[in-house]
Amino acid sequence: MSALFGDHPQTRPLSDASVEFLDTTLRDGEQAPGVSLSPAEKADIARGLDAAGVDYVEAGSACTGPGERETIKRVASQNLDATVTSFARGVQNDIDLALECDVDGVNLVVPASDRHIETKVGTTRESVVSKTADLVGYAADHGLWVEVLGEDGSRADLDFLVELMSAAMDAGADRVCVPDTVGHATPDRMLEIYAALNDVGPTSTHTHDDLGLAVTNALVGIAAGADLVHGTINGVGERAGNVAIEEVAIALYHGYGVETLDLEYVYDVAQTIANATGIPLAPNKAVVGENAFTHESGIHTDGTLKDDAMYEPYPPETVGRERRLVLGKHAGRAGVKAALAEHDVDVNDDELSAVVTRVKELGDRGKRVTDADLLTIAEEVQGRERDRRVELLGLTAASGSGQPTASVRLRVDDEERTAAGTGSGPVDAAVEAVEAALGSAGQAQLDSYHVDAITGGTDALVTVEVQMSRGDRTVTTTASDADITVASVQAMVDALDRLLAYEPDRVLADD
Amino acid sequence: MSALFGDHPQTRPLSDASVEFLDTTLRDGEQAPGVSLSPAEKADIARGLDAAGVDYVEAGSACTGPGERETIKRVASQNLDATVTSFARGVQNDIDLALECDVDGVNLVVPASDRHIETKVGTTRESVVSKTADLVGYAADHGLWVEVLGEDGSRADLDFLVELMSAAMDAGADRVCVPDTVGHATPDRMLEIYAALNDVGPTSTHTHDDLGLAVTNALVGIAAGADLVHGTINGVGERAGNVAIEEVAIALYHGYGVETLDLEYVYDVAQTIANATGIPLAPNKAVVGENAFTHESGIHTDGTLKDDAMYEPYPPETVGRERRLVLGKHAGRAGVKAALAEHDVDVNDDELSAVVTRVKELGDRGKRVTDADLLTIAEEVQGRERDRRVELLGLTAASGSGQPTASVRLRVDDEERTAAGTGSGPVDAAVEAVEAALGSAGQAQLDSYHVDAITGGTDALVTVEVQMSRGDRTVTTTASDADITVASVQAMVDALDRLLAYEPDRVLADD
Repeated sequence: MSALFGDHPQTRPLSDASVEFLDTTLRDGEQAPGVSLSPAEKADIARGLDAAGVDYVEAGSACTGPGERETIKRVASQNLDATVTSFARGVQNDIDLALECDVDGVNLVVPASDRHIETKVGTTRESVVSKTADLVGYAADHGLWVEVLGEDGSRADLDFLVELMSAAMDAGADRVCVPDTVGHATPDRMLEIYAALNDVGPTSTHTHDDLGLAVTNALVGIAAGADLVHGTINGVGERAGNVAIEEVAIALYHGYGVETLDLEYVYDVAQTIANATGIPLAPNKAVVGENAFTHESGIHTDGTLKDDAMYEPYPPETVGRERRLVLGKHAGRAGVKAALAEHDVDVNDDELSAVVTRVKELGDRGKRVTDADLLTIAEEVQGRERDRRVELLGLTAASGSGQPTASVRLRVDDEERTAAGTGSGPVDAAVEAVEAALGSAGQAQLDSYHVDAITGGTDALVTVEVQMSRGDRTVTTTASDADITVASVQAMVDALDRLLAYEPDRVLADD
Repeated sequence: MSALFGDHPQTRPLSDASVEFLDTTLRDGEQAPGVSLSPAEKADIARGLDAAGVDYVEAGSACTGPGERETIKRVASQNLDATVTSFARGVQNDIDLALECDVDGVNLVVPASDRHIETKVGTTRESVVSKTADLVGYAADHGLWVEVLGEDGSRADLDFLVELMSAAMDAGADRVCVPDTVGHATPDRMLEIYAALNDVGPTSTHTHDDLGLAVTNALVGIAAGADLVHGTINGVGERAGNVAIEEVAIALYHGYGVETLDLEYVYDVAQTIANATGIPLAPNKAVVGENAFTHESGIHTDGTLKDDAMYEPYPPETVGRERRLVLGKHAGRAGVKAALAEHDVDVNDDELSAVVTRVKELGDRGKRVTDADLLTIAEEVQGRERDRRVELLGLTAASGSGQPTASVRLRVDDEERTAAGTGSGPVDAAVEAVEAALGSAGQAQLDSYHVDAITGGTDALVTVEVQMSRGDRTVTTTASDADITVASVQAMVDALDRLLAYEPDRVLADD
């Protein structure tokens, strides 16, 4: 048996670690380009973080301005279980402003590398040490929990780091942190720093992902003795972002049996943060990405149907998610059969082969294969083509400076119907028109409406995906067109038609 | 001095490593949900990977079907420097099909964990070992480079892994790989496996990011002796994806001085892959994400203006990128002053303060602050409000089943002009109308047109960002509206107006 951390002379096995998290989405995360969080969004995110068991919430930087201070106050007054802190630069005024916000503590940031001490701030190492000690004493005297961060510490002189952090602890700091501010550190460098600080006091890590090493470096810091990890859910932050807390937490839990966050609440707050910051999650983001528990390829779907754990390290429910099996180019028999069964469609072996071939062909053309596509294929293969109950015969949408207006011409069973509607834009108006044409018996719930980001020219093809439900039936459809209104309405009409196919006896009375 | 890898009894310093890369975007990457690459896209990606110095390109899985084989053949016939391989399951037919494609080698995948051997394939360990040896011999006899992968190896019995891989090497394999198929392995487990295989033969790593450990585990594998790393540029792959090759490469280069890829070509192929797979890059993705070298906060911008390296671990040019300074809620004086200077605008100290305040206010409202916004603010602060040269007075767009048509009413200098146009959708038609109204003197280049993904309801606010240029002037504008056509045209008209402000003498003759 070899162990990386257990067998190294200066690290402990990670299974022996006890770790807490400080989330800095509201401070470092908000410094990401283009991100600006409203007071309500900050309060909402803080509650989500607290529900997920984050131990410390850095609510902002009190020196930013009166608006920011109001927001920090609001976060601090929510009676969270988490300790609420404010960022403070190495000046007394910042600590005073933090005190105004009634926070529990401060993350006091002082320069640590010569580049930051001399070029950025224009001071000296000696002055940084004595000023830090003074400020720590001041903050501690005012009852604040104090963590001292040596900015750009991963590029600082090691002896100076030890001197600075020792002075901070002597002056009354609760803990010290050597941020890898620019995402420069290697795992070796992390070990060197955290091993050297082990005798100084409790330590925190603060890692960035510029080299893709944010998680690695947090784990190495923990192995070397750190017991608080700074980061952000989703990894939002300056440049390539801070370490994604949910990744460190799942690695510790699944890999080493170390419990930290309430993992089942992580996905909720991840969604809240993605929506509020406008920084989307990549589909392949670990833990919280759309595809993290989605299987498409035939081999993987087949294996997963035999044994959930065949192609998953841990069950999705661990992190508040569900497994999804989807169909596409790499579909196999087992996956297609399972998907058909979900819609109560039985096929024999020959039919299954034919359906699989057609599904793969559709996938080959780069198309997502939706429920509606699968059911249509199955109907064609089994020779039970049905008449559509709803078909889009015509659409006219007008928008611009006036009231967006649309009309649709639908075939509903054997009858042609026309209706018009208005809305906040042409798509919204067209939806109203479709609803008007179908009447109350054709109502369904629009669960989600998604348009992929459009990049390229104004003539790019737009793909719209909708999910609609009625009772306990849910279908997903997609449609593509250079005209977003046409694609949206087509996808919705297809979904409505498919939902109505489950209720052949429902009469679409014109009310 | 402490070192994680150098001081551990079973690892070497990473600086001593020599590493090659195998990119599996065309195989494992394509198995990501919803991804389907056309033959042309695969050929294009393979050329990009080759240009970036990737050593091995896994072109696909020859057993998938005739279309896939044609594609693999096409990739293999491009005279790449890279070794081109095909995935093959542990059956002779797969090797025969790979041979048909004229590839240089095969990645022969056989089950290694008991879960995969017994539950998935329904065979025995003994049978896997003997069959693997036979197939390796067969492939090697046919002149193929052979790498044997033990599927789900990170969950396999270690003694069995050594037995299986030893048999593979004895039978003539070139190298062996223990894929962490489901992203289950800890760094400790990686060390255990790769240390144990060190005497067996050359080893490759194949890591997945389900626990956020893909990079960590690749590095630990290398430290324990592996010299080939499987992964994908952008980290596209099943579930949370494969390890992002560019992250391992930059960590080795910046952290340890180990040269692998031609890093300056990485960004190009990353874009190609994001476009072809439809899997967007998160803005905060390391190395290749939009924000990886973007600075917004005042402290960071100020520091960066004093010294490029203040808030960056390595220069963006290293990976074919450029640094961007953008403005927003956290803007500071130095950043705003630098941005104004780029547009030849001089401000005194008081004016600068006023501009900074207004920029921060705009950022506070969650808005991206574009060039056009900044220039308008500066004009207002300096009391040199200019008359707009082009203003949108009215817009009508009609679309649907007929020919998308739009008309615009513009004020162009002192004159009102109306023009109509058609296009592939209402936005495209409106662009034609604007161009017609301005005449040739108002032509400008639409460099980019971007619409954020729309999620929520059909009445969601849509934000459009355009970049337009004319001569050596470029401006970016954004506009938001529930109506995508209105937002698009407003952003374009604002950009045109701003570009024309640089050429006050240009007459917008109605030609």
